[in-house]
Amino acid sequence: MSITTAAPSAEATRARIADVAEQLFRTMGYQKTAVADIARELGMSPANVYRFFASKSAINEAITARLLDSVAVKLERIAEADGSAEARLHAIGQELLSSSMSLFFHEKRMHDMVSAAMGEHWGVIHTYIGRFITLLTRVIADGMAAGEFAPGDAAAGAQVVKACTMIWHHPAMLAECMQNMERTPSEMSGDLTQAMALLVAGLKRGSR
Amino acid sequence: MSITTAAPSAEATRARIADVAEQLFRTMGYQKTAVADIARELGMSPANVYRFFASKSAINEAITARLLDSVAVKLERIAEADGSAEARLHAIGQELLSSSMSLFFHEKRMHDMVSAAMGEHWGVIHTYIGRFITLLTRVIADGMAAGEFAPGDAAAGAQVVKACTMIWHHPAMLAECMQNMERTPSEMSGDLTQAMALLVAGLKRGSR
Repeated sequence: MSITTAAPSAEATRARIADVAEQLFRTMGYQKTAVADIARELGMSPANVYRFFASKSAINEAITARLLDSVAVKLERIAEADGSAEARLHAIGQELLSSSMSLFFHEKRMHDMVSAAMGEHWGVIHTYIGRFITLLTRVIADGMAAGEFAPGDAAAGAQVVKACTMIWHHPAMLAECMQNMERTPSEMSGDLTQAMALLVAGLKRGSR
Repeated sequence: MSITTAAPSAEATRARIADVAEQLFRTMGYQKTAVADIARELGMSPANVYRFFASKSAINEAITARLLDSVAVKLERIAEADGSAEARLHAIGQELLSSSMSLFFHEKRMHDMVSAAMGEHWGVIHTYIGRFITLLTRVIADGMAAGEFAPGDAAAGAQVVKACTMIWHHPAMLAECMQNMERTPSEMSGDLTQAMALLVAGLKRGSR
C-alpha cells in the first residue's frame, strides 16, 4: 500500500486564492489590493496566482460569482419550502432586499465589487438572474397548480415579478432609493410588501 | 403717446440662453461646449450669460427641467383624457417608454444630460416624479370611483405602479436592459404591456 500526499486540486487552490483575495478586498479595498499582495498572503509567487486567474478582475469575477451563489441558494431554499406561493413570494422579496441592503450598508466594498462586476462580467450576473427566474417560476407554477393563482404562463409571470421588483434588488437602484429618494430601509421593506401584494393580487386574478 | 422698446424679460432671456445652449449641447456635446461658445452664439458676453445662470451645470438643469416638463405634459394629457383607467395606464406606460427610448437612441447627448442631472440636480427629477405620481394617482382614483378597480388608497397604488415600472423609464435601467440584457425596443414594449396587465389585474382585485 503506497501513501501519496495529493497536491491540492486546481479547484481547491482557486478557492483558497479567492478566500484570501476576498479578505484583502474587504479590508484594503479592491483598488488598493494588488495581485502581489494576494500572493504574499498566500505564500505564493504572483506568477503562480496568475496560473489560476488571468487578472485581478478575474478574481473579482470568481468572488462575485460565489457571493451571488450564496444569495441564490438562500432564495432557492425559500422557493422549495412549504407554505403558500403568496407567502413564499413575499419571503423571497424580503430576503433579497435584506441581502442587498446588508451588502450596501455593512459591506460597502463588496457592494462596489458587485457593481463593478455588473459592468465587466455580465456572464456571472446573467447566471444569477437565470437562477432567480427559475425559482420564481417554480413558486408561481406551484401557486397555479394549487389554484391559489389563476392559470397562466408561470415563466412569463416570473419575468414580470422580477422586472417589477428590480428596484429593490438592483445595487444602483437601491443606492438611488436610499440616497436620492431618502427612503429608509424599513420604508423600502414596506414599499416592497405593497408592491408584492399588488403583484400577487394580479396573479390571483390573472392578467389575460 | 410714447413708444418704448421694452427690454426682454429676464425669463425670456433665460429661455433664449437655454435654447441656444441646448442646440450646442446637442451638436457639440455637453462636455465640449463652453459658456463662452454659448455667449458667442447669442452675441452676448460670457459675463452676461453668468448674470442669468451661475454655471454651465445650471444651464443643464434648466434644459433638463424643460425636457422633463414636456414629457410630463404629454403624460398629463393622457391621464386627463377619456377612456378606461386601464387603457390610460397602458398608454401612460407606453408613452413614457417611447419618450425614454427616443432620448436614448436618437438624442444620446440629451440622454447623457438627463443622467448627469440625476446626479447633480435631483430637485428637477424630484419635481418630475411628483407630477408623475399625481397623474397616476388621478387615473387610479378614477378607476376606483368608476368601479373598474377595487376601492383602496389611490396614492399608494400610484407609488407601487411607479416603482414597479421604473425599469422602463429610468435612463440607467433602460440602457442596461438594452445593452446587457439585449432586449429590443419591441420586446421591452411587450414586457411593459405584460407588467402593466399584471398590475392592472392587481388593482382590479385589490391587494388588501
